[in-house]
Amino acid sequence: MSMKEIEEGNELRLDFTKLQKVAGTGLPVLPVVVQDADSRDVLLVAYSNREALERSLETGVATFWSTSRNELWIKGRTSGDTLALVDVRVNCEQNSLLYLVRRVGGGVCHTRDASGQTRRTCYYRSLKDGKLDFLT
Amino acid sequence: MSMKEIEEGNELRLDFTKLQKVAGTGLPVLPVVVQDADSRDVLLVAYSNREALERSLETGVATFWSTSRNELWIKGRTSGDTLALVDVRVNCEQNSLLYLVRRVGGGVCHTRDASGQTRRTCYYRSLKDGKLDFLT
Repeated sequence: MSMKEIEEGNELRLDFTKLQKVAGTGLPVLPVVVQDADSRDVLLVAYSNREALERSLETGVATFWSTSRNELWIKGRTSGDTLALVDVRVNCEQNSLLYLVRRVGGGVCHTRDASGQTRRTCYYRSLKDGKLDFLT
Repeated sequence: MSMKEIEEGNELRLDFTKLQKVAGTGLPVLPVVVQDADSRDVLLVAYSNREALERSLETGVATFWSTSRNELWIKGRTSGDTLALVDVRVNCEQNSLLYLVRRVGGGVCHTRDASGQTRRTCYYRSLKDGKLDFLT
């Protein structure tokens, strides 16, 4: 199945291999939930290491570790859709993070809706009766 | 550092090894963000495989895969703090899930606040100047 079908289709084709791939790199990263501090929408899940966290705190711009490119990833640096860091929360066991952010550009996701706008969250589909419904 | 210090302390002691441990089990799981459908608080991050997702959909109770015990984990089955599943969202690349839930019992986290109540989210601390501040 192509990325287009995965991202714009109604078929549920969950990729259960992602964490294995992330871990396969041997990188010491933890999952980061990114939530819009204003709308309170959950926007995406990314991964961070110590360097990405420190850079986020220094610059005030949500920064992650790209597990595919194996490099620091300032989200939106090329698109302009950066995310200003409002707060960093830590979970009980200190093995995940929650970044509260404020959108600087228009969208968040790398995908675009029918009108050509970058979507405001990566969670734009809901699972209903085994199919994916696009949320408006 | 003890779990008590990790969970109830002000020191940042992030565990960057969790994903490696999860992946080391060889289990095909993906991260699940759990958000309160009413308060919109992010409650926790857990992991699910196909079986846990199917069980969640069948029963309407948020169910995960315990990566430490390697078994199906009906969250709150023993404590009574189960989470009713309101909606399942899928991200663009179909490698993470967002469960919108409604609390059935009182709390969510396995930790307890000063009054002895289970906390309502696992993200009860905020990182400020290198230390963890407890949110009220």
